[in-house]
Amino acid sequence: MKSDELFALLRRRGVLWPSAEIYGGAQGLYDYGPLGTALKRRVEEAWAAWFVGLSRDYHRIEPAEILPEAVVRASGHLENFTDPEITCEQCHTAFRAETILEKVRPEGVDGLSSTEIAEIVSARKLRCPNCGSMALSVPRSFNLMFGLEFGVTGKERAYLRPETAQGSYLSFPRMWDVGRKALPLGIAVIGKAYRNEIAPRQVLFRMRAFTQAELQIFFDPAHFDVPFDRVREESLPVLRVPRRESGEETPEWIRAGDLVATGGLPEFYVYHLAHTYRFFRDVLRYPADRIRLFEKSDSERAFYNRIQFDVEVRLESLNGFKELGAVHYRGDYDLGRHGQGSGKDLSVTAPSGAKVLPHVLELTFGVDRNVWGLADVHLGKDDDRTVWRLPSYLAPVAVGVFPLIPKEHAEYAGRLAEELAAADVPSRYDEAGTIGKRYARMDEAGTPFCVTVDGGTLAAGDDRDTVTLRDRDSKAQERVRSADLAARIRPALIPPRPPRS
Amino acid sequence: MKSDELFALLRRRGVLWPSAEIYGGAQGLYDYGPLGTALKRRVEEAWAAWFVGLSRDYHRIEPAEILPEAVVRASGHLENFTDPEITCEQCHTAFRAETILEKVRPEGVDGLSSTEIAEIVSARKLRCPNCGSMALSVPRSFNLMFGLEFGVTGKERAYLRPETAQGSYLSFPRMWDVGRKALPLGIAVIGKAYRNEIAPRQVLFRMRAFTQAELQIFFDPAHFDVPFDRVREESLPVLRVPRRESGEETPEWIRAGDLVATGGLPEFYVYHLAHTYRFFRDVLRYPADRIRLFEKSDSERAFYNRIQFDVEVRLESLNGFKELGAVHYRGDYDLGRHGQGSGKDLSVTAPSGAKVLPHVLELTFGVDRNVWGLADVHLGKDDDRTVWRLPSYLAPVAVGVFPLIPKEHAEYAGRLAEELAAADVPSRYDEAGTIGKRYARMDEAGTPFCVTVDGGTLAAGDDRDTVTLRDRDSKAQERVRSADLAARIRPALIPPRPPRS
Repeated sequence: MKSDELFALLRRRGVLWPSAEIYGGAQGLYDYGPLGTALKRRVEEAWAAWFVGLSRDYHRIEPAEILPEAVVRASGHLENFTDPEITCEQCHTAFRAETILEKVRPEGVDGLSSTEIAEIVSARKLRCPNCGSMALSVPRSFNLMFGLEFGVTGKERAYLRPETAQGSYLSFPRMWDVGRKALPLGIAVIGKAYRNEIAPRQVLFRMRAFTQAELQIFFDPAHFDVPFDRVREESLPVLRVPRRESGEETPEWIRAGDLVATGGLPEFYVYHLAHTYRFFRDVLRYPADRIRLFEKSDSERAFYNRIQFDVEVRLESLNGFKELGAVHYRGDYDLGRHGQGSGKDLSVTAPSGAKVLPHVLELTFGVDRNVWGLADVHLGKDDDRTVWRLPSYLAPVAVGVFPLIPKEHAEYAGRLAEELAAADVPSRYDEAGTIGKRYARMDEAGTPFCVTVDGGTLAAGDDRDTVTLRDRDSKAQERVRSADLAARIRPALIPPRPPRS
Repeated sequence: MKSDELFALLRRRGVLWPSAEIYGGAQGLYDYGPLGTALKRRVEEAWAAWFVGLSRDYHRIEPAEILPEAVVRASGHLENFTDPEITCEQCHTAFRAETILEKVRPEGVDGLSSTEIAEIVSARKLRCPNCGSMALSVPRSFNLMFGLEFGVTGKERAYLRPETAQGSYLSFPRMWDVGRKALPLGIAVIGKAYRNEIAPRQVLFRMRAFTQAELQIFFDPAHFDVPFDRVREESLPVLRVPRRESGEETPEWIRAGDLVATGGLPEFYVYHLAHTYRFFRDVLRYPADRIRLFEKSDSERAFYNRIQFDVEVRLESLNGFKELGAVHYRGDYDLGRHGQGSGKDLSVTAPSGAKVLPHVLELTFGVDRNVWGLADVHLGKDDDRTVWRLPSYLAPVAVGVFPLIPKEHAEYAGRLAEELAAADVPSRYDEAGTIGKRYARMDEAGTPFCVTVDGGTLAAGDDRDTVTLRDRDSKAQERVRSADLAARIRPALIPPRPPRS
């Protein structure tokens, strides 16, 4: 499906819609409806089960979304978290410079100065994408953070966090104190981040308020032992810089072990990259041939990132590979900057007795983008029906419960739906329309199971207290005892954790 | 425990701490650590299970936290969401007028004009609580919303939502369209709200960023049928206005049925008030004698609220009853205002064919305040130990897993902890210190169960593959098969839903 078509479907089904619709919407803001909210929460829980589950020393916290100015000054965001913006002086639309230069410079404008961008605009006679005018302004540096007046004096400034990571860096000393005082120490945050994007677009891909899931792993660069054997034989679809520079866009499959042995990457990095890949393939179930691990070059990645691979998934709705996650080796940049900014020594004592300023490995994941990705990849036409083949542990509703004839079977079915919910099996009762229509609604919502209560359920005989259980994917039906349903379905609702061997 | 002592304990245990501590903190902002994050999420899930579970037609959504200016203009927040503020001209500290007048006017300043407040300050010769000076400014109206420049032009204003409710009102038309087009329709939101409080204080009670759980029920005032028999005989601890005005502070127990029959309250209101009370008593397990349902008078409640009871719980740490939730009957104020503001007709067609502008019943719940309340009420000394008697479905960790002798039992215990986590039983492995110390840590963290792996677990014999299961509250121990643990513990982790009969 194309992006517009997919968005229309998601909107019609109550998965998500533009925020403040009755006021004409607010650019870059979306509301999740009942199905979207449940799906998004399940994606978050699946992420946490997998990544926090990687080690006993990885923990989840919830830091504040508002950062005092001193924090974003130290982190560099106040100075550098900017996008060059060009305004059309004819129609007054603002554009990211990247958008204006899109056709002549598909690789983007990172690293170019304002003067260089202005020169390209002028030399190539670029025009406003909106009205076609050539009256384009010189680029100005536009800071993407939302600033706030904090407190009552009007003198204190604060900012909505542009990424969740800063809260983890600020919490590191306290987490060290309350924990077992050993590295590595992982701090995970799932929460909102905010960016005043110049040109919000592609629905959930460039939003002004979005949800990130990020794990920051603080480690001693001299000693970060990982159980590498768990991933050594895994082949990863990587697209490295030299191959990219030769014009290739398809990844090549390289063993994790070889990425270390001959590829020059450290074990700790490849270990976490491999687990990230597995999460996308085995938990979110993106097909392996639609995933690539895209290495960023020196000029593409932020200067403090020493190694960066983006996890990209090919999405039909957006015409190509899109970044849905990434693994950043950030060195000691973050604690170094906050140590300077706060005047506190953020180094810790390693078992050897040496002082260490921990390095950071950052695993990032775009929750909204993956909600979209899961719709793009798993939702589609199948013969005569539209079906959303979500993994069962991600499905908003686990089981639809139908009375075959509402007048006769509603009470039993209603009670059954309640009992399932009380056993932690999210259920939805539906009595509207034919059974076929009810199946169709549940298929489109990604519900993996449906049960129908019928005459046999209530009548004396072999079928008493049994119902028809129907599987979304195979459409197979079988007769199951009502009392056994919860135990039957419940295990399918637990998201996988990383295997330990 | 007093507030300071409780906060120190929670901080030491990694439940929560002031945000941006290394920069000296940010007033009114807190970070939740690992235990606090897990507890908070479980409180949120328990709230959702109970309140969204009240009806098939109540749904949870996740709307954006940023509201365009037109929205807060229509809702009245731009004009009225203010607090009178008084500044000391000597020491330049800003105070809520309520704080300056606290001793002479304990009932607060709601309804007083700036002039009236200034007159009291002058007549009673009030002083700055900080420096003692009498050089106090006249009160000024301070809007508590955080404003943002939204977009790139510098001309669009937006606001961080001061309450989650607005997102539900804005979503009502879309929810109507995607749903079964019938009233009542409930829309629940759990999420952050933001207020630039003049004087943040009492830790989680007056924060600048906080989490609300709110359910907005849209209904036809002519037909809101509820299964009132489910609550008719429930006695509720109410403190009504006439009793309050006679000087009483303790509630009286009145049957729900009588609140309707002779108390003048509508059935739909009392039905939801009773379920709210039950949530506080039966789910969060606040002792009944510490809860009161505190009716607000005409002058105390917002002008659009027709009926308001606050749910108050007596907290030792804060020296008295504190508002932890409320039930507001808001009439048609919200959809009426947004209908005017947006120029859209937000009325819907009732089954009778009549056009109805839905009324709203709002159930609000302060998540952070209740995290604090659950610590105040359930965490304390008990003989020789500190124990947090959280209901098991709210506990951050369900089971502690210990090897009796780490050198011998670590592998088995580690695997068991993993298996429990994989069966959706949050576990924590701990091998540090004596078993007594490990029990003590788990007691303080509220962990309801601990299991110990010992020689018997590994040796041939009757105890093979069994472990000691210890109960937090009774301290009773019994021998249980490792393979049976998940099935044994898992049911205790599901939050209760409202009974249907």
